[in-house]
Amino acid sequence: MDLAESLRNRIEEALRAEQFLGKPFELYDPIAYTLSQGGKRIRPLLALISCAMFDGEVEDAIEPAKGIEFFHNFTLLHDDIMDQAALRRGNPTVWKKWNTDRAILSGDTMFVLAYEKISKVRPDILPEILELFNITARQVCEGQQLDMNFETNPEVSTDEYLEMIRLKTAVLIACSLKLGALVARTSVENADMIYRFGIQLGMAFQIRDDFLDVFGRHDKVGKEIGGDIVTRKKTYLYLTAFNRAKGDDLIRLTYYFHEPGIPLEEKIHQVRNLYLKTGVDKLTQETIESYSQEALHLLKQIPVDEDKKIPLRNLVNEMLDRDY
Amino acid sequence: MDLAESLRNRIEEALRAEQFLGKPFELYDPIAYTLSQGGKRIRPLLALISCAMFDGEVEDAIEPAKGIEFFHNFTLLHDDIMDQAALRRGNPTVWKKWNTDRAILSGDTMFVLAYEKISKVRPDILPEILELFNITARQVCEGQQLDMNFETNPEVSTDEYLEMIRLKTAVLIACSLKLGALVARTSVENADMIYRFGIQLGMAFQIRDDFLDVFGRHDKVGKEIGGDIVTRKKTYLYLTAFNRAKGDDLIRLTYYFHEPGIPLEEKIHQVRNLYLKTGVDKLTQETIESYSQEALHLLKQIPVDEDKKIPLRNLVNEMLDRDY
Repeated sequence: MDLAESLRNRIEEALRAEQFLGKPFELYDPIAYTLSQGGKRIRPLLALISCAMFDGEVEDAIEPAKGIEFFHNFTLLHDDIMDQAALRRGNPTVWKKWNTDRAILSGDTMFVLAYEKISKVRPDILPEILELFNITARQVCEGQQLDMNFETNPEVSTDEYLEMIRLKTAVLIACSLKLGALVARTSVENADMIYRFGIQLGMAFQIRDDFLDVFGRHDKVGKEIGGDIVTRKKTYLYLTAFNRAKGDDLIRLTYYFHEPGIPLEEKIHQVRNLYLKTGVDKLTQETIESYSQEALHLLKQIPVDEDKKIPLRNLVNEMLDRDY
Repeated sequence: MDLAESLRNRIEEALRAEQFLGKPFELYDPIAYTLSQGGKRIRPLLALISCAMFDGEVEDAIEPAKGIEFFHNFTLLHDDIMDQAALRRGNPTVWKKWNTDRAILSGDTMFVLAYEKISKVRPDILPEILELFNITARQVCEGQQLDMNFETNPEVSTDEYLEMIRLKTAVLIACSLKLGALVARTSVENADMIYRFGIQLGMAFQIRDDFLDVFGRHDKVGKEIGGDIVTRKKTYLYLTAFNRAKGDDLIRLTYYFHEPGIPLEEKIHQVRNLYLKTGVDKLTQETIESYSQEALHLLKQIPVDEDKKIPLRNLVNEMLDRDY
């Protein structure tokens, strides 16, 4: 068993050990439910792998890594209310299974639990860890607000989109990695570098998520293909297509994307074809590759034995499904 | 100008200095709006007065005291969604003025801001302060859930009610006082004693709030009288009346309290009269007095010059409108 796999098991074991037997159960049941739905646990895993890479004591990073996972799940819980999403990981979302009030309040409680876990670090690094987490949590909220703004903004630019996913997705990936580095008490430079690496990785990861929503295989992605098109989400693919399409293609893209009442299969088929026609599939892959390369370039500069970077490289390849 | 007044001015000034110019404005405007609505700033004031009483440096308590006020306002923001309350301090609530999504997310952000402020204490006391605040925040969520449970629970006991207000109201009052004590680096015993004092004070304060809702004067209370009766809130008064009423009175109480379609004025008038008939007004005042006495008894035991306790005593009298 390689290090990444054993750390993943360790995280799963640590999360399973959480009981949520607090009272009233109406508050804690949705939390237990949310955390039992699985997910890839990428963020806590990044924290542990980063900690190990910088020769830290991995056990010291378990609790704050759990805190990151709690926080991530809290954001999903509240986002699902705002997006009126009925399903998450194949199961009813909390607001759907119970009600909105329960989802708001159990989400708030989960946020407190995240802080409780994050706080379980040595006192000497607590101020730094807390500052990192506070800024990150605020940025994630800002990113979610920008995402909501985009729904009604007819003129979102690609740059605005990239800034939105930086805040909504990339900073938490970067925070996880830096948290592991801080627990390991590596140098300020290293902690800064792994954070910047995390931003690039997070950007690639999110754009790849957008890509897979349209061009992924249903059995691999684990959700219906074309969901972003159905919900008219202004993803990197749509914005790029919108910028590149001309004449009839632009009219058709706008029509098929926005017009209500088009059968969903037809809508997805047409938009997907326009993405292909305008070369958005290739452009998006190039963008993902560019962020990945930048991430790997930063990783290379970190003064740690290349051997020790292998688990992180493997996880990056898994996250981005790179074959090399 | 006495100490309490100058500290109140200091808090107001410190809150006014907050800008909330972050982006996107859709996220920060509701926060600025919420904090500009005023309120009595009792919790931060308790923190400062406690800090001064224990010979602490009041300026060191300003930021975390603001954090407590941010947290309190965050809970109101989310509670107003759950209670579908349209007005707060005479103005539209955030979910009503904007929408529920904005209220959820700006509330979440305000919660992060609370943690940012709370964290602004000397590193040596950060772990203690954070532990206190984490536990308190969790308990407030538990209290709000219990309160929501009561709406559909036909058999709430007075003890269950007291436990609910302990969690929803008293622990934050107690936390504010203890926070001031911790900033002042007083003894563990003193910090513990002022916390216990705060619990008793908080209980008296909340039950008095219930009392004023029915027996207060409109011009003094600043809101419509009888709101709890209209919304069928199971307050200390209702539960006590329900336990004491017999025969016809019990039937009438249940009828006027629960039956929909009764004109509101008639409903309030009848329930209020039944409270008077069953002696609930006097009993409630005795309960408030009992908690107040217990609080003052605890305050007396704190080994600090009686002179230094005057600002806190004055604030207690103001909070409970005691004339002695």
